[in-house]
Amino acid sequence: MENLHKRILEEGQALSETVLKVDSFLNHQVDAELMYEMGTYFKNYFEKHKVTKIFTIESSGIAPAVMTAMQMNLPMVTLKKQSSKTLNGDVYQTRVHSFTKNSDYELTLSKKYIDKNDNILVIDDFLANGEAALGAARLIEEAGASVAGIGIVIEKSFQKGAEMLKDKGYDVYSLARIAKLSKGEIEFIK
Amino acid sequence: MENLHKRILEEGQALSETVLKVDSFLNHQVDAELMYEMGTYFKNYFEKHKVTKIFTIESSGIAPAVMTAMQMNLPMVTLKKQSSKTLNGDVYQTRVHSFTKNSDYELTLSKKYIDKNDNILVIDDFLANGEAALGAARLIEEAGASVAGIGIVIEKSFQKGAEMLKDKGYDVYSLARIAKLSKGEIEFIK
Repeated sequence: MENLHKRILEEGQALSETVLKVDSFLNHQVDAELMYEMGTYFKNYFEKHKVTKIFTIESSGIAPAVMTAMQMNLPMVTLKKQSSKTLNGDVYQTRVHSFTKNSDYELTLSKKYIDKNDNILVIDDFLANGEAALGAARLIEEAGASVAGIGIVIEKSFQKGAEMLKDKGYDVYSLARIAKLSKGEIEFIK
Repeated sequence: MENLHKRILEEGQALSETVLKVDSFLNHQVDAELMYEMGTYFKNYFEKHKVTKIFTIESSGIAPAVMTAMQMNLPMVTLKKQSSKTLNGDVYQTRVHSFTKNSDYELTLSKKYIDKNDNILVIDDFLANGEAALGAARLIEEAGASVAGIGIVIEKSFQKGAEMLKDKGYDVYSLARIAKLSKGEIEFIK
């Protein structure tokens, strides 16, 4: 996605070999028009799978996901990050490790918003080690539903997530794929 | 906003005299088309103030805020909820008490995304005691900028927030105003 590549190059800050800060248009300040365009790309790529619902993970995935949901005319569900297990039977939960924050959270989904006929597109802002996307896929499959695909805004292709998810058979589509980060430098996969 | 009233009556669950659950279209599952319509209402009401930016509070305010930002052609900023003070000078922070969760958090804004000429519209999903909206206003004013107004999806008018914010001179506009909740019953302000 050309406009995204451009913004990453102009505004992204490679803080280290693994950390890319894009808080001027995606993670803190948000460019709504760019989010809409991301939605168009996700729609164009994923409309071949009969998607029934879009899932995202709070909170930076919400903006691109809601723009995709609108254009695909589908409901969206935000998976919540909770600090501890909920003690009732109304939810699915799975533990996810965040390498960024070096802590765990319980990804949580109300049983009301999924059923076994669902074919779900997962959208998230970043893909690095793939823990969050894999957690979302676990919840979906635990409910007996299917993962239609995984749509990512920025894939750090030098980390293991994308390959791991593809190895498991998921259709992963990323709007920007980063080959290499080093202090002050950002290189895309050609 | 008629479609919102309709959805609240059809799908909202009054769990007590203060708790209204609307997680089928706003807080967990999200109806993107309805969020877009909310954005149209906010735009129509607030375009009289020269708004320069939209702020929201993570995470349920993001969907209506990004839809408003797109239609008003403005940047949006998501204020982050952090559990503790950040020890650097690059951010504004203010402590907010959540009555829902009975805990405090540090509402956080990078200094890069505000300046004293900004006139900011704050959008959030719920207004009850007004702590979150007031916290956002404090951050904005601490930066020397102005609050253009406060746009709320669902106002619980029987709690003190709306009146308190209006008393302080803020232009508060809510898409649905609830006069009374009781178990199984929801009453709007006429």
